[in-house]
Amino acid sequence: MGLALRWARAGETVLIGSRDGERAKDAADKISQRAGGQAKISGMENAAACAAAEILVLTVPFEGQASLLKQLKPAIRAGSILIDATVALASSVGGRASRTLAVWQGSSAQQAAELIAKGVSVAAAFHNLSAELLNGDEDLDCDVIVCSDDAQAGQLARTLAARIPGVRAIDGGKLENARVLEQITALLIGLNIRHKGHAGIRITGLPQKAYE
Amino acid sequence: MGLALRWARAGETVLIGSRDGERAKDAADKISQRAGGQAKISGMENAAACAAAEILVLTVPFEGQASLLKQLKPAIRAGSILIDATVALASSVGGRASRTLAVWQGSSAQQAAELIAKGVSVAAAFHNLSAELLNGDEDLDCDVIVCSDDAQAGQLARTLAARIPGVRAIDGGKLENARVLEQITALLIGLNIRHKGHAGIRITGLPQKAYE
Repeated sequence: MGLALRWARAGETVLIGSRDGERAKDAADKISQRAGGQAKISGMENAAACAAAEILVLTVPFEGQASLLKQLKPAIRAGSILIDATVALASSVGGRASRTLAVWQGSSAQQAAELIAKGVSVAAAFHNLSAELLNGDEDLDCDVIVCSDDAQAGQLARTLAARIPGVRAIDGGKLENARVLEQITALLIGLNIRHKGHAGIRITGLPQKAYE
Repeated sequence: MGLALRWARAGETVLIGSRDGERAKDAADKISQRAGGQAKISGMENAAACAAAEILVLTVPFEGQASLLKQLKPAIRAGSILIDATVALASSVGGRASRTLAVWQGSSAQQAAELIAKGVSVAAAFHNLSAELLNGDEDLDCDVIVCSDDAQAGQLARTLAARIPGVRAIDGGKLENARVLEQITALLIGLNIRHKGHAGIRITGLPQKAYE
């Protein structure tokens, strides 16, 4: 919801997909009201959203990721870019959200890359943004590290990230590095519980062009 | 070297331990010159340093950590606090420094806790500070997350961290969370290689008292 809100406000065309098309439409209406009359946002069933979109952003709990991707595989267009924000939190299996599960492939994003069709490129991003802050009105104070084995997918994900006010996008290298981004989410959740906040990260010490 | 320099400048009494006592003395002399005449710093063989110190900071490559701790176990005083900064980088076994090894216990710090005597408390900290920046003269722009199962050890490590100009210390919870701090180091090394910098992290979005 928060990502859709921020991108709608930035003038991007946003399609919200859900298992329930009506629920997606309701969500799109709510965001449209908050984003202002110019917002280009609509809601529809997942397969329809996949068929209509060039860039897909997957933001589901880990326990739903694999089955959803298998189900949507035929609907995702060849040449699409899938941006995966999934984090394999132990809460997926009744454990703590401040701990992660080990994913066989290395990370949830690598699992996604294995499950979708070959013509679809995967980038990992947006793991470390607070959903609550994204869904608010203030600028964020966070960096988004993007990992991908596909230069174009990584670039597009970084461009989308940088459209969120207050966010800087950083190229984090190969998709395999997504495992660290997932671990950071668990750490941030632990910090939120301990210190009662909405933690994010900034990367310091890189030359200016790394943030562009 | 950088930590010793920063703490010597802050007025702390610092003992540098090394396998080679003469090398430790040379290092202490160099730091003393840089830190100014008031610096309380000396160098000695590792076992002598352990016997003389109340707080030990272990900053060795992963491949040397376990054997060093086994060797020094009898020399470390009961009631001491061991602050472990070890990161299980894959470079320890000829791999890349932007990747980590899985440590059976969960993290290098947990391996340290298993190897030392029961009366010694362990905290994990300082994984994410650039050695090069620490060894310089500028203030740092980094947070230090401290993980420990012992409240006093964690507090002492945070106090020491906060004595480094520009560093904020954050309680990161249990020692088991050190595994994420280690992963972050690998990510930062990857960013340094990719973007030619000296990356560190800041945690945003926590209430002010989390940083004190």
